[in-house]
Order: sequence, then C-alpha cells, then structure tokens
Amino acid sequence: MLATDMAILCFLHDLFGRELADAVTAALPGEDIRWWPDRGRPEDITHALIWRPRPGLWDGLSHLRLVCGTGAGVDHFVLDPSFPRAAKLVRQIDAGFAARMADYVLTWVLFHHRDSAHYLAAQSAGSWQPRAMRDTSATTVGVLGLGQMGGLAADRLAALGFRTLGWVQRPQTRAGVEVLVGLDGLQQLAREADILVNLLPLTPETRGILSADLFCRLKPGAILINVGRGPHLVEADLIPALDQGWLGAAVLDVFETEPLPAGHRFWADPRISITPHVSSSASAATVAGHFADAVRRERAGEPLLGLVDFARGY
Amino acid sequence: MLATDMAILCFLHDLFGRELADAVTAALPGEDIRWWPDRGRPEDITHALIWRPRPGLWDGLSHLRLVCGTGAGVDHFVLDPSFPRAAKLVRQIDAGFAARMADYVLTWVLFHHRDSAHYLAAQSAGSWQPRAMRDTSATTVGVLGLGQMGGLAADRLAALGFRTLGWVQRPQTRAGVEVLVGLDGLQQLAREADILVNLLPLTPETRGILSADLFCRLKPGAILINVGRGPHLVEADLIPALDQGWLGAAVLDVFETEPLPAGHRFWADPRISITPHVSSSASAATVAGHFADAVRRERAGEPLLGLVDFARGY
Repeated sequence: MLATDMAILCFLHDLFGRELADAVTAALPGEDIRWWPDRGRPEDITHALIWRPRPGLWDGLSHLRLVCGTGAGVDHFVLDPSFPRAAKLVRQIDAGFAARMADYVLTWVLFHHRDSAHYLAAQSAGSWQPRAMRDTSATTVGVLGLGQMGGLAADRLAALGFRTLGWVQRPQTRAGVEVLVGLDGLQQLAREADILVNLLPLTPETRGILSADLFCRLKPGAILINVGRGPHLVEADLIPALDQGWLGAAVLDVFETEPLPAGHRFWADPRISITPHVSSSASAATVAGHFADAVRRERAGEPLLGLVDFARGY
Repeated sequence: MLATDMAILCFLHDLFGRELADAVTAALPGEDIRWWPDRGRPEDITHALIWRPRPGLWDGLSHLRLVCGTGAGVDHFVLDPSFPRAAKLVRQIDAGFAARMADYVLTWVLFHHRDSAHYLAAQSAGSWQPRAMRDTSATTVGVLGLGQMGGLAADRLAALGFRTLGWVQRPQTRAGVEVLVGLDGLQQLAREADILVNLLPLTPETRGILSADLFCRLKPGAILINVGRGPHLVEADLIPALDQGWLGAAVLDVFETEPLPAGHRFWADPRISITPHVSSSASAATVAGHFADAVRRERAGEPLLGLVDFARGY
C-alpha cells in the first residue's frame, strides 16, 4: 500500500549492518522509509522500527501509530517517559530468537557444569588436574522467568537431564520443570540452584532483583548467568558476593552501561565471564518480516502480534 | 557365591578414589578381592576389573576367565599382546556413560559455535567485540563413529538443530543424522563439517585417522574435538594444521601419552583446549554393578553383556 502521507522511521543496531536495512527495504516496497537521524518532516512518520530510543528520536512524531522494537525486551520503550503513548508498541516474537537464547544458556550452563573454568585455568598452569564429573541430574538450574525466552531455555535444560526450577509470577504447568512462584518460591530456588539464570523482563518490580539480598540466600558457590537486562543486577553487589563465596562465578551478557566501560572492574575479574550483549537477536529477515506484517496489520485494523501491555511492562 | 579357589583382582583409576573400591566390595560380598599390586597367588585369580594393563599385571594369571574394563574403550586390552586371550573381555555398557560423553561434546561444540574463545580473548583485552550470532542450523557437526558414544552425541546435536553428519563403517539409519560411509563419506564429511568430533573406537584401521591427510581436506578453520583416543591423532600434524589454517582450533581430551607431559607444546597453544581425559566415565555404582553382574553371568554360563569381539577390536 502506497500512502504519500505515511512514512516509516528506522533506527537499527550497528551489529545488523546493511543486512537488516536491506531486508526492511525489500519487505516494504514502495514505502517512504527514513533512516535515523534523517527523519525528514517528523509529522509524516506513522510507523517506526527502533532498536533503542535516543534523545530527540520521538520529538514531533505527532502522527506515530506503531513502534516495533528490534529486541525481545521492550523496557527501553516502556520505561522511557518521553515514549509517545498514543502509539502501539510491539516486540519481536520469533521462535529463532528464543532458540538462540536457549543455545547461549546451554553453552554457559554446560561450561560450568563441566568445570571448564577449572580446566582452562589448569591448562594455563600447564597442569593435568582431572576432577570427578557429574551427571546433569546432579546439577540444579534455576531459571528466573518462563516467558518466550526462559520457557524454552528451561525446556532445553530439562531435556538434557538437568534438574530445572522455574520462577514465574503466575503459576503455570511445564513438563519437566518445577514451577515456583512468589517470594517463598524465589527463596526456595535460591537455596536449591547450583546455577541461576536470569531471563526476567525488566520492570520496576524486577529491577535490582539480583542483589546481595538474593545472593546471601544462595547455595554457596552458585553460578549466576545474567541474560536479562543489566539493571536486574545491582552491580555493586556482585564482587562482594563472589568474595563472600555466595557466588562461585558469574556470566554476564548485559550491563548497566553498554558497552561495558573500559577499565570496569568486571573485565579483569577471573570469576566473571563477559560477553558483549550477544546472547540472542532475531535474524534480519525475521525482524523485517515481523515489522512489515505489523505495519500491514496496523493499517488494516487487525490484531497485532507481540503487542506490549504497558501496565504489565512487557 | 563363595569360592575359596576363586579370587578377584582389581586395578582402578585414582580418579574413582575409594568410591569405586567401596562399591565393588559392597557388590561382591564375601568374595576374595585383591587390590593391585597385591595379587596374592596369581593362579587363584579368575575374574578381574581393570582400568588399564600394567607391566606384570597378567603374569601367571593362568586361571583368568573374565576381564571387565572400567572404560568404554577396550583398545588397551585388545591391542596388548600380553593380554591372556583365554579370558573373555567385557566393556562398560552404561547409558549414563554415553550421556556424560554427549554432555562433553555439547559443551565444546556450543563453546565454539557461540564464539566463546573469541569472547574470552576479547575479555582478556578488556574489549567489547560483538560478533553476529548463528543459528545451530548454520553449523555442521561431523561425528566420526555412531556407536554407543557417537550415536547419542549425534542424536543430541541433531535435537539442538545442528546439521549433523555421522561417519560409520556399516550403513545405519538414524533420524536427524546424515549417515556417511567409506572413504568417500569421510571426505564428504571433511569438506562439509564446521566442527569434527572423533568418537571412533581405536583399532589398527582408525589409528592415526586424524592426520594431515584428513586436515588438508577440511573446510578452512574447522574445529577438531578429539574424545576418542590419543593415538587417533597424529600429534605431530596438529600444530602445522592450525598454522596452515586447515584447523581453526582443537579440543583434546585424550593424548598419545597421558597425563600430557609437562612442557608439551599443546599446553601453551591458545588454539588448543586441553581437558585431562574427563570427557566421560561410568559412575562407581554402575561399574561395580556391571562387574558383579558379569562375574555372576560368567559363573552361571549366561550370555555376557558388552562382550568384546577381538576380531572387530571393540
């Protein structure tokens, strides 16, 4: 559908490179697509595909009707006071997105389950130091959040034989996963988990949930894997929790400030493994297809897939 | 069954510690069990549970009827010219053994599939260097050997979505795995695999199969994971293959000489990950139970589980 008074604004993550821009162009033929920061007349813009809000991004977008985020998390939009609330917000819904996240979770759960940090250190010392190995059933993994991401990760962990606990706001039944709810459930998970994986959405309720108050309740030497959002973790509490032995190691893919600043204490701590926010992303083809479909549905007045509930926050 | 003229000889790996010795004692109550090197009168010994042959181990065991290995591989026995061939040889058969091996294979396949070596190096440099991630379907894993070990590893890889090739001596059908046979099949696997996993038994035919002749046919930068036996790999060919770029990295759990000698070039090569023969072992309880069952079956003249065919070599 051509509409001369409708324009589309795109602001994409560098990591996608030209691939996503080309896919969006191909998925929306004949449309007036504008690339941040070249917005043209802001009042033309009705639909937008946005990685993250930037200062000035929303200014004057008086006709904006739909925003599609390129990530699974939408906290950057929901928690942004300047977000134009007259527009609908949709998030990515992509089975591949959750599968790639589950791959990341398995990669690091297995890494620690099989003592890989010990073996890498032993190799650095040129030293043959076998340790007894464990069955997956001897390792308990606690997953915070059983949504699109956490649900598939928990299913995959359970399929490999890990004892799998899942903590979630509303009770659900999930084959192979012991589902826990409420504060009691969180404390039970902390007591029993050898490895703790955070896949919660970031909301005012979950901000700072990974703090000394939780860490001090963990099984001593537990492993933390944070693939939610940086602000889930109270960063100042992490190194003290490692020093106390509450935590044995941490794997962090997300940070309060990204990129993680040069010289930050986390970089050089051998107990912390850092990856640069690469746990998962949707593929360029999927993002472009989902966005084009959302634009079509919004114009046709059809239900939107992945519509965000601002009251719930995701 | 008590039999004063029957004694049992045990020689176990240190890694099992007291656990396996205690389990064997419990599984064979009232038996005359002797612990290497204290064999007593060698002609008393009728049954033996052995990690690996040692010089003098077999000397004078004129009444030996059954040997049970503690590992999955039996090449140490089959290829030992002093092995007393009048005795039957059984190997471990344990689903948990194969499951632990599959866990190891998944650990290192995922490690490389998700660029973990790159991220560990980037962290050492204090540097935020995201790379585009790949779906498992974009990575081809070639598994050499689809027996007890390789078969389960291939099934698990296929279940995670990896394109999985399996190379085997006799054709078989395996859901989700492309089965290749013969020299042509090996060369196809080499051309197509991003990650090559060796889980063959060690026989005269497979000794040295991981050599420059195979490496030069690989997709450039392929990853080698050797969890078979040390002598599958021509060790002198590995670093040249990495230098040539035929291989991008290697993960080695087994070596020509174990423990890998101090100062060996492999220890300090950042392209090689070393683990000290810990890819899998049977649990103490399982080894003891399997051995006690084999002793009972041999005495009763019942069929033995895991009986080794010396002509085939495994």
